[in-house]
This record gives sequence, C-alpha cells and structure tokens, in this order.
Amino acid sequence: MKLYIVGFGAGGYQYMTIQAKEALEDSEVIVGYSVYVDLVRNYFIDKEFYSTSMKKEEDRCRWAIEKTLQGKKVAIICSGDSGVYGLASLVYELAADYEPFEIEVISGVTAALSGGAVLGAPLTHDFAVISLSDLLTPWELIEKRLNCSAMCDMVICLYNPSSKKRIDYLKKACEIILKYRSEATVCGYVRNIGREGEYGKVMNLGDLKDLSVDMFTTVFIGNSTTKNLNNKMVTPRGYKITTDFSRNVEPSKTDH
Amino acid sequence: MKLYIVGFGAGGYQYMTIQAKEALEDSEVIVGYSVYVDLVRNYFIDKEFYSTSMKKEEDRCRWAIEKTLQGKKVAIICSGDSGVYGLASLVYELAADYEPFEIEVISGVTAALSGGAVLGAPLTHDFAVISLSDLLTPWELIEKRLNCSAMCDMVICLYNPSSKKRIDYLKKACEIILKYRSEATVCGYVRNIGREGEYGKVMNLGDLKDLSVDMFTTVFIGNSTTKNLNNKMVTPRGYKITTDFSRNVEPSKTDH
Repeated sequence: MKLYIVGFGAGGYQYMTIQAKEALEDSEVIVGYSVYVDLVRNYFIDKEFYSTSMKKEEDRCRWAIEKTLQGKKVAIICSGDSGVYGLASLVYELAADYEPFEIEVISGVTAALSGGAVLGAPLTHDFAVISLSDLLTPWELIEKRLNCSAMCDMVICLYNPSSKKRIDYLKKACEIILKYRSEATVCGYVRNIGREGEYGKVMNLGDLKDLSVDMFTTVFIGNSTTKNLNNKMVTPRGYKITTDFSRNVEPSKTDH
Repeated sequence: MKLYIVGFGAGGYQYMTIQAKEALEDSEVIVGYSVYVDLVRNYFIDKEFYSTSMKKEEDRCRWAIEKTLQGKKVAIICSGDSGVYGLASLVYELAADYEPFEIEVISGVTAALSGGAVLGAPLTHDFAVISLSDLLTPWELIEKRLNCSAMCDMVICLYNPSSKKRIDYLKKACEIILKYRSEATVCGYVRNIGREGEYGKVMNLGDLKDLSVDMFTTVFIGNSTTKNLNNKMVTPRGYKITTDFSRNVEPSKTDH
C-alpha cells in the first residue's frame, strides 16, 4: 500500500517531472485542493478525483490515507514541491494514527525555482526562503528571519507575500531588509508562475517596498551583488569571479 | 536564436521536468560538464554533444553562446536547477559580450528538494540553502550565514559539504549551529541523490558533526521542531498546528 505525495510544479503540465507524471499515471485516485485537481484533471484519465477547499488539509490527507489503506493507489497533489509549504510533513505526522503504509514523496519544482527562471537567475548562490504568512508562525519569528537573512547578505525569496488580512506585510518585510541593504538592491516578483497571466518584473527594493502584490506572487530580494541585466535579475556566483577561480576574495565588500 | 539553460534535476531521466525534456528534444546541440552529458546522452538521439571538465565553465558557456549565434538550437545542461549554484547567472553575465540572443531558463529540481524527498519532509517551512564551498565566497561570510540561519531557527540545507581540500567544513558548520541548537536536533543527509548508490540517513546533530561526507552529499539540519518519525526527517508546518488553524501561537518556544 503506497501513498504518493506529488509536487506538480508551477501549474502547467510541462512543469511536472517525468517521475511525477508517472506517479499520477500509476495512481487510481488523485487527491488535492480543488484548484490543483482542476489543473491536472485533463491530463490523467480514468482516475477518481477527490478535492477539498483550501483549509481542509487534514481532512484531505486523512481521506487519502484511508483510501490507501483500503488498497487503492493514491496520490496527493501539491503545487510546487510537496516538501516546501506543502503537505508532505502533515501526511507523515498523521500517518502515526494508522497502521503502517509506504509513503513516497515525489519532488517538484517549487516557486523559488520556477519563478526564478522567469526572472533570470536571481538565486544562484546562498538563499533563504521565507513565508510571510503568520497563520502558523509568529510574526516576531518571521521578522527575526528577515533580519537574519538580510544581515548575512543572502538572497531572500518570499512566499505568501500578502493576503486579504496581511496587505502590508511585504512593506514591513522590505523595511526590515532596508536596514541592511540599499534601496537600489535589485529585486523582482513573479505572479501566476506557469499559469495564465504569468507576469514577472525586475525592480529595485525601494520600489518593491511600495508595491501591492497578491497571494499568487513570489517575491525575490537580491543580495548586495545582484544585478539588473537587460531586465533580468541576475545574482553572480560569488564575490569575486575570475576564470582561473583565484581565491583572492574580498571579504570586506560583504561585511555589514 | 535561443539558448536553453536546463536544470535536469538529480540525475536520472525521470527527475527532469517535461519542459526540460521538451527543451532538450528541441535542441540540436547539448552542452555540459562531461559527467552530466553522459547522464543524458542516451535519452536524446541525433544531437551534437559538447562537454568539458568541471572547471571549464566559462569556456563551455561561451562555446554554447557562439553556437547559438551561428543559428543552432543549443541547450546548456546543469544538474538540479541551473539557477541554484548553476550556470544560468554566468550565461547572463557573458551574454553582455555578444550581440543579443534569447535565453530561456528551464527550472529543475534542486538537491534541497530531491534530497528532501528521500529523507521525508525536512524543509516544509522557512529554510536556508548554504554552500560550504569557499572557492568564490569567503569562509567568514559562510560562517556568518550559518550563524544567522541557526539563530532564527530556519531549517538549513548544506550543499558542497566537503571536498579534498575542505574535509572538516561540515564539522565546523555543525559546531557553529550547535551554539543555537541542541545535539538532539534531527538532521539528515543524502548521497548520490537520484543516482546509483543513492543513500539517505536521518540522525542527530551531535552525530552529524563527526561524520565524513563526500562532495556528492546534501546535508539537512532541522529546526527546533523537526522530528524523526520512523527514520524520516519531518519538519512540521509551524509552531502550533491545530485543525481549526487557531492563531494562538507560542512565540516563546522559538526564541533563543
């Protein structure tokens, strides 16, 4: 008895891995948030589909586990990667309530990567991924993570940058980062990655701070070396690039 | 004239996205580090392949750009995602030396995600990705990033944890993190993700500190909530989980 937990990537069929496609083809039942089930439904025929609204995640996972234990081949689908703000951990935690069964996590392309590809090469080197949703995490800790990531010059990728109840969180996040980085820092955002209406834009941190974004947007804040090259957000690979990979790096350039 | 920069994921054919497969099928020439070209060669027939040794990255990219400008459809391949310690940024930087041409970055599954899927669900929430290679980045900055990431209780994923010249860097990294996290912190590593000899193990930070790992290994250090559930590394989704998504979170649990 095996339950697949499948990250299907950004949204279109082509963003899933071949492994994900094969897992979904192998499954008899596909379970997910209703919007995600609708994204994949047309590509996998003769399957039983089960969907729930966004907040019924535990119900969804328990239903999938119970179907698996009845002997069905089941896949739970998540957008992006199921191990990044997805359901893989919840399934492992709930599994303790049931008799043993096999779980196979199928990795997918998370928004930091698919959105990054739209903008150019914004990550490249060390980066932090932080969600601005304080539903399950105290805002004070999110602030601490923003401070810490900015303090050591990592590229920062923000998920869930806003919602109806959190319209100024991106501004607050930018104000924290501005304590360590200049207003000219190259940033970018991508809306609706891999879906209809995909839109990406490169700008500076000063302008990002005043921007309204929706919940379908992923935000990238560059480090001190990130550049805007023909409207692509490009973070170089290190602090000194030479073709002979000399080790004469300049640490003082990055100290704050 | 278009140059694809393709992340092919962990190594086996099934780890690449359908989009990556289509880009490689569309290409006439496939360029990459020799080990990577050998991984994909058998799946894409009637292509011209060009490979170089590991350190000849600039040569490899320039050759690909020049072929693109001659009118060929070219793809540069990178393992994982080309925007995470890959070649996407180098191509954008080198492109400035040439007449304009289109670059399309095709995202792939980076080791933090494919390795994560082997271990269970180690990331789940906010995380930092840090390379322990000091070839292009000063060790002092890497130390700062380790301190900062540990200080704010993010899960930490380490790339390039060792090499012939850097055999004790994982130990040094763990010693830094141990200033903020207990020896019992749940950790894990995966060697040869997606390739022959793939091996993953979950352990605690105290044991990880004394481990020898090779350069084909990705290391995961959990946050204060990460658990070992039946030898799977599982980080829960927040600091208080309730099925009604109550906002009564407990910030003191995470302060250091």
